Amino acid sequence: MEKGLLIVLSGPSGVGKGTVCTALRPKMKDLTYSISATTRSPRPGEVDGINYFFKSKEEFQSMIQQDELLEWAEYVGNFYGTPAPFVRETLDKGKDIILEIEVQGALKVKEKFPEGIFIFLIPPSLNELENRIVGRGTETSESIQNRMSAAREELSMMQNYDYVVVNDEIELACARIQSIIAAEHCRRERVFPNIKKQILEVK
Amino acid sequence: MEKGLLIVLSGPSGVGKGTVCTALRPKMKDLTYSISATTRSPRPGEVDGINYFFKSKEEFQSMIQQDELLEWAEYVGNFYGTPAPFVRETLDKGKDIILEIEVQGALKVKEKFPEGIFIFLIPPSLNELENRIVGRGTETSESIQNRMSAAREELSMMQNYDYVVVNDEIELACARIQSIIAAEHCRRERVFPNIKKQILEVK
Repeated sequence: MEKGLLIVLSGPSGVGKGTVCTALRPKMKDLTYSISATTRSPRPGEVDGINYFFKSKEEFQSMIQQDELLEWAEYVGNFYGTPAPFVRETLDKGKDIILEIEVQGALKVKEKFPEGIFIFLIPPSLNELENRIVGRGTETSESIQNRMSAAREELSMMQNYDYVVVNDEIELACARIQSIIAAEHCRRERVFPNIKKQILEVK
Repeated sequence: MEKGLLIVLSGPSGVGKGTVCTALRPKMKDLTYSISATTRSPRPGEVDGINYFFKSKEEFQSMIQQDELLEWAEYVGNFYGTPAPFVRETLDKGKDIILEIEVQGALKVKEKFPEGIFIFLIPPSLNELENRIVGRGTETSESIQNRMSAAREELSMMQNYDYVVVNDEIELACARIQSIIAAEHCRRERVFPNIKKQILEVK
């Protein structure tokens, strides 16, 4: 059976990864959403195995040691990570799975899943840069330099990704991501081995 | 300015390239459709520069000699070919252009435009092969071998393409092609140089 696609949605913080991912859910019901493991306590209404895999610190440490996390990080005293088994099981079932993840985490996932589809979400302002800059020069050179410096940092991350999606409007960003996933399912490298196998098997 | 995408839609004869291309027109109004040159006479209602570029045999021969055709072929005493200038001008304007073309012609276009997006349309039967073959063996082994032989020939062509689209339903095939074009516009290699230039220019 053909394996599912691992889709990694990442980008600079504040770009709207979570919002886009939430908007995708009702549109792409065949897509599985990766569930993070965390050591923080469940909030009212949160369900283990749906919102998060809730773990003790000891369990989390053990997952790290057993290499069971594709990536992990610590925020405000709590640990968050992506459990590898859930991802691998989903892919083995032939189902696509999406990870919404920070840029550093995405790079770690890429080490383990170089065949994944890495999508970099960018704010529209990066795209508008040209207009702003070529414009009437209302900004001080220091302000421009700061902006350029931030842009350059984002830029260097972009190199590790397959696709760049502008999050100008959530609906448009979702449509682009849906197109990317649909197109990737048509890529010859993916389709070809299956067709070839079908034919070779009955030679 | 960013160049347009050259999209080549090809596949075995009879697969429905023309039908799919016609169905795409009202859906993708931003897409330019390549116009072939031909030495055959215009039929009633056909307009030069819209349906075809109508040429004399001498003009066509001269186009071949001047290397003005991306590809050409002779059918039933008439010549047909793809004029390069129209394709290049469209791309230079930043507009996408689609060529609907036979497999041999597509390979020639690929020599001149390796950066093109090559889509191979396959009949659904190729995809259904597995089911048919794994099925109850109602076919003679000779019939299976003929089918496999044809499939293998199609298969060897597929290697030259970026995408494989199953023409099971015209609407679905169109949607896949639209997704491929949308996704290709998001590819980092295409988006990145523009963003990089914007930033480097104002260093």
